[in-house]
Amino acid sequence: MIVYFNGKIMNLGNVSISPFDRAFQFGDGVYEVIRYYPEKFFEFKLHLDRLKNSLHKIEIDFNSFENIETVLYDLIQMNNLNDKLSIAYIQISRGNQFPRRHFYNENMEPSIFIYVENYPAKIDDMKNGVKVGLEEDIRWLRCDIKTTSLLPNILSKHRAIKNGLTEIIWHRNGFITEGTQTNVCFIKNGELITPPLSNLILPGITRGIVLRLCKKLRIRYTERDINMSELYHFDEIFLVSTTAEVTPVIELDGNIINGSVPGPICKLLQSEYQKLYNSEN
Amino acid sequence: MIVYFNGKIMNLGNVSISPFDRAFQFGDGVYEVIRYYPEKFFEFKLHLDRLKNSLHKIEIDFNSFENIETVLYDLIQMNNLNDKLSIAYIQISRGNQFPRRHFYNENMEPSIFIYVENYPAKIDDMKNGVKVGLEEDIRWLRCDIKTTSLLPNILSKHRAIKNGLTEIIWHRNGFITEGTQTNVCFIKNGELITPPLSNLILPGITRGIVLRLCKKLRIRYTERDINMSELYHFDEIFLVSTTAEVTPVIELDGNIINGSVPGPICKLLQSEYQKLYNSEN
Repeated sequence: MIVYFNGKIMNLGNVSISPFDRAFQFGDGVYEVIRYYPEKFFEFKLHLDRLKNSLHKIEIDFNSFENIETVLYDLIQMNNLNDKLSIAYIQISRGNQFPRRHFYNENMEPSIFIYVENYPAKIDDMKNGVKVGLEEDIRWLRCDIKTTSLLPNILSKHRAIKNGLTEIIWHRNGFITEGTQTNVCFIKNGELITPPLSNLILPGITRGIVLRLCKKLRIRYTERDINMSELYHFDEIFLVSTTAEVTPVIELDGNIINGSVPGPICKLLQSEYQKLYNSEN
Repeated sequence: MIVYFNGKIMNLGNVSISPFDRAFQFGDGVYEVIRYYPEKFFEFKLHLDRLKNSLHKIEIDFNSFENIETVLYDLIQMNNLNDKLSIAYIQISRGNQFPRRHFYNENMEPSIFIYVENYPAKIDDMKNGVKVGLEEDIRWLRCDIKTTSLLPNILSKHRAIKNGLTEIIWHRNGFITEGTQTNVCFIKNGELITPPLSNLILPGITRGIVLRLCKKLRIRYTERDINMSELYHFDEIFLVSTTAEVTPVIELDGNIINGSVPGPICKLLQSEYQKLYNSEN
């Protein structure tokens, strides 16, 4: 596999991360995952902007973005993925620091790692819907930053998979936040409702696109806090993310949603979302 | 520098961490820092037990601890640190996983990295006391796990250093929790008060030793929640940790503590703590 590491295209086997890389020792890094729909990276600019925001929020001083988009396409080509539904993973860490200290040198050289992977659509999930669990959100209070300090996310996600579920939806102080890798949307009487942007959720690219679609399609939408007590009174529930796109939830914490079938607004938004990346090509 | 990586003693330059190591991508690892007072590692067993606990809590299945103590002494010797005040850093990550997925394979091979470093005592801090700041504790709700997902810790610590402070003491919901790398103790009318063990603080080894010393020295102590409103009514405040040992706080968030001098109980506990590692040798 051909990857990109600190300015060079190379074989994965030649990438050597130092044990003093701060992502390794402190989770001191940020990342993005971008969808490649042959033959285009979808909404590259929005992902790049979010990456820059994440870097800014934790004060990692990395600015060498000029050729990143070119690198992504080069990696797709070199890995023979031109015609394959794929993803790119971009991770930037604060860099190497020896000896290990919590505080960091401000003139540190960040490190960047990029790889691409054939990542087929989860067609069955999208078509038939998924079962999700419910857990308390015990993450830190800056969930708006797409950091590699992901331990709470991976522990919840692992419990989901182990229990035959696809995702966990979190709640904090009685209100819904988001999933471990997704934002969550709800439908009630034809209106889309989703938690507002804040320090408690990731500003999802797909979430933003779905709200844009609502505007275009004249679907009313509201960004507001969603109380746990409302959970089972919604007509539809669905997850949105770069790889999940728009994925219906048919069971939540053991409770059947919309008679176990994807709802009409979810299906509409899903197909409109698909049109976006199809029309771009 | 000679280090230990996955069963082998080697030069640091030969250690190659995969970009698919889960500590690098997810902060999916745990660690310990142990003090070497020539010529002995102090309370090795307590640190090892806590490391095992951390592994257990996040379900990393690593059990090859038989020779770890020997490795620590070997590293001290090979790095010519026999007579130097040092630390050992031990990090265990869940292992490499390709491709990158939040959920993990349960039969994964964890990776272990150990290095030792000459780490002199902060004599001036211990003797004259330190200035610390106060911040809201925005970490996740499993601060009892000594994980490498440390982003909130390093951001707070960095702000401290930048502002000429030594440490940040955190508060959550109006109550004191701990420092970014230390537990916190308070003295009022001859009694030591410290927050109780819970999911909100690390079960500090030094914290435990200091409480043992209180018992021995017949200093009354209470583990209880400490309200922010009490903060400036204490006679003494001090930090405890493996490397800080017992370090007096002389200024907290701009407020002078005990007339800017280390208090008598802090000094007593500090010297009794020093006797413990001196007597062991």
